[in-house]
Amino acid sequence: MTGSAPSAPLSVPPGSAPNNATYDPLFQAALDGLHADGSYRYFAELERRAGNFPQAFHHGAGRDVTVWCSNDYLGMGQHPLVQAAMHKALDETGAGAGGTRNISGTHHYHVELEKELAALHGKESALLFNSGYLSNWVTLGTIAGRLKDCVVLSDALNHASMIEGIRHSRAEKRIFRHNDLQDLERHLKELPPDVPKIIAFESVYSMDGDIAPIEEICDLADKYGAMTYLDEVHAVGMYGAQGGGIAQERGLEHRLTVIEGTLGKGFGVVGGYIAASRALCDFVRSFGSGFIFSTALPPMIAAGVLASVRHLRASATEREGQKRAVAYLRRRLDEAGLPYIDSPSHIVPVMVGDAKTCRALSDELLTRFGHYLQPINYPTVPRGTERLRLTPGPLHTEAQIDDLVAALATLWREKGLALRPAA
Amino acid sequence: MTGSAPSAPLSVPPGSAPNNATYDPLFQAALDGLHADGSYRYFAELERRAGNFPQAFHHGAGRDVTVWCSNDYLGMGQHPLVQAAMHKALDETGAGAGGTRNISGTHHYHVELEKELAALHGKESALLFNSGYLSNWVTLGTIAGRLKDCVVLSDALNHASMIEGIRHSRAEKRIFRHNDLQDLERHLKELPPDVPKIIAFESVYSMDGDIAPIEEICDLADKYGAMTYLDEVHAVGMYGAQGGGIAQERGLEHRLTVIEGTLGKGFGVVGGYIAASRALCDFVRSFGSGFIFSTALPPMIAAGVLASVRHLRASATEREGQKRAVAYLRRRLDEAGLPYIDSPSHIVPVMVGDAKTCRALSDELLTRFGHYLQPINYPTVPRGTERLRLTPGPLHTEAQIDDLVAALATLWREKGLALRPAA
Repeated sequence: MTGSAPSAPLSVPPGSAPNNATYDPLFQAALDGLHADGSYRYFAELERRAGNFPQAFHHGAGRDVTVWCSNDYLGMGQHPLVQAAMHKALDETGAGAGGTRNISGTHHYHVELEKELAALHGKESALLFNSGYLSNWVTLGTIAGRLKDCVVLSDALNHASMIEGIRHSRAEKRIFRHNDLQDLERHLKELPPDVPKIIAFESVYSMDGDIAPIEEICDLADKYGAMTYLDEVHAVGMYGAQGGGIAQERGLEHRLTVIEGTLGKGFGVVGGYIAASRALCDFVRSFGSGFIFSTALPPMIAAGVLASVRHLRASATEREGQKRAVAYLRRRLDEAGLPYIDSPSHIVPVMVGDAKTCRALSDELLTRFGHYLQPINYPTVPRGTERLRLTPGPLHTEAQIDDLVAALATLWREKGLALRPAA
Repeated sequence: MTGSAPSAPLSVPPGSAPNNATYDPLFQAALDGLHADGSYRYFAELERRAGNFPQAFHHGAGRDVTVWCSNDYLGMGQHPLVQAAMHKALDETGAGAGGTRNISGTHHYHVELEKELAALHGKESALLFNSGYLSNWVTLGTIAGRLKDCVVLSDALNHASMIEGIRHSRAEKRIFRHNDLQDLERHLKELPPDVPKIIAFESVYSMDGDIAPIEEICDLADKYGAMTYLDEVHAVGMYGAQGGGIAQERGLEHRLTVIEGTLGKGFGVVGGYIAASRALCDFVRSFGSGFIFSTALPPMIAAGVLASVRHLRASATEREGQKRAVAYLRRRLDEAGLPYIDSPSHIVPVMVGDAKTCRALSDELLTRFGHYLQPINYPTVPRGTERLRLTPGPLHTEAQIDDLVAALATLWREKGLALRPAA
């Protein structure tokens, strides 16, 4: 998910003096460009219904829908333990933190949660942020920005938040081909041995659902003296014996310098974090502007996340339910001959290959069939690979999956889209 | 509050090849530097007690304390209406949003809150962010970054989040002397008339509590065709007939291009926002990477903020209570001859002027007297202006204020610090 939306820079006509009436038309012209190429984003206004996920009320369609594109992958956002912990903390501590972490904003729940996240990943320390985006942006921006002559080796499909963090650091960036060890090594070989290096990559890539060769990347990092920075936002909660992610599943956590995760997807609430050595976390805590100067997450949010992490460390039920739903969906898609990327993860991209068709499918799934999935178009994915990205979870029933696949098959037939040979 | 902490870039010894064991000592060396100059930040671990603000339990001191440095300025974090709205939304909608705003993460409460914030400021539109830091960083980074040849005129004391947003945009930045209209005009005059310009400033500056000459800055903006970007984070909820901030109090909201605010201070919860024209908000919504790629705030957070904003639009009780507490504290400080900056806002900086003394005062206030205030040292404020920053609010009683001032007077006497002539 590399894409910020594109646009040419907005220009004031040369020789003219701008005034307040000049600027809005410039912004509007850029928006008109999005409308024209079909990439303007309309937000669906939902009402999620706790206790009844993945159902929600869709204001635009005026009906109940089944949500297939949520990143609350395990439904922890409606887990009774999480909700109970938040109700309790809300009564105890109130609504907000009241300050930055340094100025009255550190609550007992933040401290407990950071300990829990460090333990989850077998690291010395962890550091909380208000979002996963911030955790990537601040950590990479701070480390790469303050290490003299640092070079960041960045996977070509890294998330926007890593890209922006590297950009902010002004460190040299080298992009290696996606998950390509040879290309990564080629870059590493070209760099002077005595410059600091960071290899920044993800475990599960959100749009194709493919998974990085983490062990081999760590081997290269060791060989060339690089730090490793692994974004596990689409994996934490869902992989590994305790939900610690792909690195945990593969027994590699100790080999990574930084593991970054989110509290808003598998864990179902909101926020981000890093887990790393004590010195590294303390360094980011002490020098990262976006950490230092942000009001802390509300203690009641930290309490909810703490309950979620503790539960998913102990319970495999949700992970097993997700795996079952994903396998069942793939089987039904196979039977229907619908084209999808067969990834090793829980992400099921049904391929469409055209922006307008993708949006039309999404619209009809919503209005005719009551299935909500956001079309994924350029710039989020390359042109020609437009898709419907499905994230089935433990709360999706077989009946809901059957219903979705039947609707897809109907639309595929009506629109004359290509099928694969049925399995 | 301009300061990221300083440090020399961290260097790998030339000629040596770094490995994973190389990096931690570099981070540690930077931290050692903070310890040596007294600027290392120790976080106080608190337990805020809803219903009993400003009291909290302080884990380090092992005792109950009165909190004097919270930015939950009006105590809205424990307001029954806010808590009730959050309990209700937590039951209805669950813990999190489940996605970015574009991908299943927009909830009815987000939409309602954005409408309310637009109405609060008399603007066409508003846009929510996960934090005030993000709202400044994303908005300035996106607008200044995408307007060709844009120049940002930035007040010398602007908050770190604005500075980092401008840095990220790579637009030309010109810093004008703090609240200095002549210096601002000097810069405006020097710029070509046909380049886009943004004047970025705050209303209430958080460390001295002084207030910008907003009307005169708007006059200059009109004269030179600049946009105005006003950060009202230390004012929203607290100034103006409906809590819309200083611009509202002075009848100037229509003259500002962007008003930026926070939901984590006066409104007592967490989050940030901008209010502006429909085109501008839509532009940032559509092109701001840090907006697009962040998981949305939980709907229950939006619901709590919505209750807080609605309440503070209708009720002046909290604002009046704050004004009473501030006036009473100033009177008592005057009577005791304690030195403070007599600002036109609610912020009361008691001046110490030395980092070690400032920390020692803070430590003794905590352990001997049960008053918690974080020492404010370099780099947050210039050396020689170290201070204890007090933010009394409607929930501080006269007895608590009396007790604090007596403790300060005792410490001032014991340490032989200079007093002013008693009023």
